[in-house]
Amino acid sequence: MFTDQLPALSARFTTVRPSVVRELLALTARPGVISFAGGLPAPEFFDLDGALAAVQEVLRSRSVLQYSPSEGNPELRARIAERYAAIGLPTDPEQIVITTGSQQGLSLLAATLVDPGDVVLVERPSYLAALQCFALAGARLIGVPSAGESVDLEALADLAERHRPKAFYIVPTFHNPTGRTLTQENRAGIVAVAERHGFRVIEDDPYRELSYAGAAPAPMAAGAEPGRVISTGSFSKILAPGLRLGWIRTDPSIRSAVVIAKQAADLHTSTLDQAAAATYLASGRLDAAIRRSRAGYAERRDAMLAGLPATLPDGSTWNRPDGGMFVWVTLPEPMDSAALLGAAIDHDVAFVPGAPFHTDPAPANTLRLSFVTYPPDRIAEGLSRLAPVFR
Amino acid sequence: MFTDQLPALSARFTTVRPSVVRELLALTARPGVISFAGGLPAPEFFDLDGALAAVQEVLRSRSVLQYSPSEGNPELRARIAERYAAIGLPTDPEQIVITTGSQQGLSLLAATLVDPGDVVLVERPSYLAALQCFALAGARLIGVPSAGESVDLEALADLAERHRPKAFYIVPTFHNPTGRTLTQENRAGIVAVAERHGFRVIEDDPYRELSYAGAAPAPMAAGAEPGRVISTGSFSKILAPGLRLGWIRTDPSIRSAVVIAKQAADLHTSTLDQAAAATYLASGRLDAAIRRSRAGYAERRDAMLAGLPATLPDGSTWNRPDGGMFVWVTLPEPMDSAALLGAAIDHDVAFVPGAPFHTDPAPANTLRLSFVTYPPDRIAEGLSRLAPVFR
Repeated sequence: MFTDQLPALSARFTTVRPSVVRELLALTARPGVISFAGGLPAPEFFDLDGALAAVQEVLRSRSVLQYSPSEGNPELRARIAERYAAIGLPTDPEQIVITTGSQQGLSLLAATLVDPGDVVLVERPSYLAALQCFALAGARLIGVPSAGESVDLEALADLAERHRPKAFYIVPTFHNPTGRTLTQENRAGIVAVAERHGFRVIEDDPYRELSYAGAAPAPMAAGAEPGRVISTGSFSKILAPGLRLGWIRTDPSIRSAVVIAKQAADLHTSTLDQAAAATYLASGRLDAAIRRSRAGYAERRDAMLAGLPATLPDGSTWNRPDGGMFVWVTLPEPMDSAALLGAAIDHDVAFVPGAPFHTDPAPANTLRLSFVTYPPDRIAEGLSRLAPVFR
Repeated sequence: MFTDQLPALSARFTTVRPSVVRELLALTARPGVISFAGGLPAPEFFDLDGALAAVQEVLRSRSVLQYSPSEGNPELRARIAERYAAIGLPTDPEQIVITTGSQQGLSLLAATLVDPGDVVLVERPSYLAALQCFALAGARLIGVPSAGESVDLEALADLAERHRPKAFYIVPTFHNPTGRTLTQENRAGIVAVAERHGFRVIEDDPYRELSYAGAAPAPMAAGAEPGRVISTGSFSKILAPGLRLGWIRTDPSIRSAVVIAKQAADLHTSTLDQAAAATYLASGRLDAAIRRSRAGYAERRDAMLAGLPATLPDGSTWNRPDGGMFVWVTLPEPMDSAALLGAAIDHDVAFVPGAPFHTDPAPANTLRLSFVTYPPDRIAEGLSRLAPVFR
């Protein structure tokens, strides 16, 4: 008999939807499967030589094996602050707190900002692991409708009025799962609603550098009063996800709380990985690596977009993302993407149905396709396997 | 105006005591200071060559820069399971979940087992960062008194009866902060009370391998029914804290919840660091490195114990730990260790006052001294600086 068994485990964890993506990711490991499900960066664009050189360099000193400050490596924080400044968002290195991937950034913000029962607004659809993270913190999640490729500002203001949310969690640039990017005007509108209603915006921005059509719009934090928009970022899409290196761009109003939460979460992020990243950034190789990823991914996006008309049934629609990793497909009604997944897997190809990305009942006819993992010929092959499933 | 400002931030974070240890750790960086405050392993015992060789080996493959499973590297989990089996605790690799340091292990167990308002029992005194971790999860912490070097079993049963705790958090081997090790008999008694009253034991066991007088008693999990004792472990004291590698030895009753919490916390621990540790363990170098640390730390413990009689005022008492990192000192009443800390720092030497390690009002005359960071001559120098402060 365990006193914990019923109250804690069940109550907290039944709010978390079955992790569809997790199971689909395992599929990627099955030989021969072409998985458009995962958001796995293509390893061929990892700068392995650069990573090795950086690690060898920092492992000259025993200090990279020692404990280090919870806020993170000062040099790495300074480099991140510089990169923000370069895109129009002046940032003090003090504001940056290094996290174990941007997933931890979300988890720390949930711990810092959310009390059980608090409302957190999210996009419809939204990033699955963020939904999980806020749900575990006890948040009540409410989806904000879209108007075309924008957040519906009237609906946002109405939900804010009715529910007094703590925060609006949003991926404004090359969104996961839809690939959409909010315009500068829509960003400003969201910030204005947030300021009027007193909630914070959590701007999750890991895909920003993967832009295939010129620079992405400025971060939402750039136009807002201090502390209104808290941004998270990541090296996972531009350097290496395996290093688990992300950050929060905090503000004095929450910085010390975030650092306390970080300390309780894991004391600090790997000293070795942080030092290696700082050295790698100092080497100047990152921007060249990003350019290679951009060129490669743009080509893959084009390959996927070129193959979709012959793959999807008549009446399907999809977007043309300017960056990131994902295309969002809407099949004609009454098709059910989840019901087709089994047949797809039988054909050694996978995608993610759209419904789990929602926190409320959602249309069954959407799905997410990742275009970054495979070269163009494999994308074409995967789509040719999908065609008979959908048609 | 932020809706979160008052309710969430203040309510949750005022329960967390000011992080005295954190500020003291910063002191260690001040040139010339001899700090007995931190629990920093001595870098001269880090196997830098072994770490470099392991990292170079694993960085031949791009896969160490990629995402990896939340449960952790399968080979590393198998090695950890083998090490448990070797000390009398048969363990299936499936039971092991890799965490970002054992601090994250505590944080995940808090998330998994504790609902706000639940009671968690802790030792008096207890590990500071664990208190912080359970407090942040909303636990009500209640201290269990000691009888000599043991946990007072009658008091434990009485507290369990009155408060229906979810768990008893305990560091049974070379305890932080006191250095005490519970006997096999006392361990069995604690487990018996836990089984009778239905709470779990969280056995935090990072110091076990740092034993200077033969093998430590078997883990508490060895004598208990499945799931009753959940153990956490760490490579921080035996390999390198900077890698942030720890683990939870779970049980089917909580494993899936722990993995979900892990996924929400940071998706997974650094792929690179885990792979390097697995390769390092396979190289067989770890046990030799542990032997070097043991010999060096035993000598340092002896140096500290030898110097204490001339350092501390008459009427002081302290223990002789058989392992770990810490000596616990009780000054004669009515001395106040916290009040003496400022003078110590003026003399370029530091310790941690004992009161913050308690969750309830505690005697002011205790303090913790770490003996692992400096060689014997620096320990002697540090103690000679402390003597005029205390006498």
